[in-house]
Amino acid sequence: MEIIDISWPLRPDTTAYKDHKTIIFTTKKTIDSDGVRESILTCGSHSGTHIDAPAHFIKDAETIDQAPLDRFVGPCKVVDLTHVQGAIHAHDLYDLDIEEGDFLLIKTSNSTLSATAPFNKDFVYLNASAAQYLVELDIGLIGFDYLGIERQQPDHQTHRLLMDADIMIVEGLRLGHVAAKSYFFVCLPLAVVGLEAAPARAILVGGL
Amino acid sequence: MEIIDISWPLRPDTTAYKDHKTIIFTTKKTIDSDGVRESILTCGSHSGTHIDAPAHFIKDAETIDQAPLDRFVGPCKVVDLTHVQGAIHAHDLYDLDIEEGDFLLIKTSNSTLSATAPFNKDFVYLNASAAQYLVELDIGLIGFDYLGIERQQPDHQTHRLLMDADIMIVEGLRLGHVAAKSYFFVCLPLAVVGLEAAPARAILVGGL
Repeated sequence: MEIIDISWPLRPDTTAYKDHKTIIFTTKKTIDSDGVRESILTCGSHSGTHIDAPAHFIKDAETIDQAPLDRFVGPCKVVDLTHVQGAIHAHDLYDLDIEEGDFLLIKTSNSTLSATAPFNKDFVYLNASAAQYLVELDIGLIGFDYLGIERQQPDHQTHRLLMDADIMIVEGLRLGHVAAKSYFFVCLPLAVVGLEAAPARAILVGGL
Repeated sequence: MEIIDISWPLRPDTTAYKDHKTIIFTTKKTIDSDGVRESILTCGSHSGTHIDAPAHFIKDAETIDQAPLDRFVGPCKVVDLTHVQGAIHAHDLYDLDIEEGDFLLIKTSNSTLSATAPFNKDFVYLNASAAQYLVELDIGLIGFDYLGIERQQPDHQTHRLLMDADIMIVEGLRLGHVAAKSYFFVCLPLAVVGLEAAPARAILVGGL
């Protein structure tokens, strides 16, 4: 069994969406003073690797604790779109082997950026035509290698198309070290209750 | 494939060790004001389900990000010790089928407590004789169903015995709904860098 970590490391200088940093580590107890070390962690619900629930965009919609965990655990395909600049369009996906129910992780040139680089407002993103194509294919989950999956869409069309079709969205993956092939994907969000998203740890398991 | 969530739900009123509550959810953006909902999460590194790294008790020791993830992912055995009151001693473990390298999850009467009950200072715990016995058996990981694995040991003997033997410690599991048998265990800590522990999500997978 091989485990590949595809999570974004979380530290105070971790890249944040539009550079709105939220991660704070506070020391609560130290070994010198208390005989034990304990910390307090603060982070945005969309920090690093995270899963968006429909409540991120839709009032009173499903929160992250209401999504069954089998929505984030299962066989997956990593596809290589590192040659695409700017927007990923539907036509960039046509030649890929994508089937109904697939968990699709898209590796782009975003994964070449450092995990603590300033926010790149020109990140590669998934445009509405590509989202619509994936909705038609009826995939189960999309994983993306930046802190957002869309930009330049004031009405959040990519998110809305995917969420309306009940396709789970995992953002903030790190795929630069991952070959484009099939794996077993496990992405576990923190067990927070009632929030619109949760930070998560994501791995690929090979040789199961 | 069946997924059983064995994580402690995280909310502001979640039971905290010695009732020192640390979990805070803050609203950062709302759909009404901002068109999108975003939250900030604060929690102790030992809130709910979490993994302790050696740096919890030993200065400059390994932090949670330095532990390879295969230490928390693999076949496991859930054993039922719900009949034990107070301390679990070595002799309570003698009749169990425990082997070298095992990931051992101990289900106790702690799992009958509500996830938001006041802290129970009389929780069932693992005493030093039991820890020493598991060290001799050379297990790989111990999972326990309360926010601590020991009490009434000012020198943290249970933790130190297990940590010195490189046995991983997962605390804050919820096992009341789980039958005592073999499963595939996946426990993924948040990818925090440099901390002595991390909150984690833990599942059992059956039928893999």
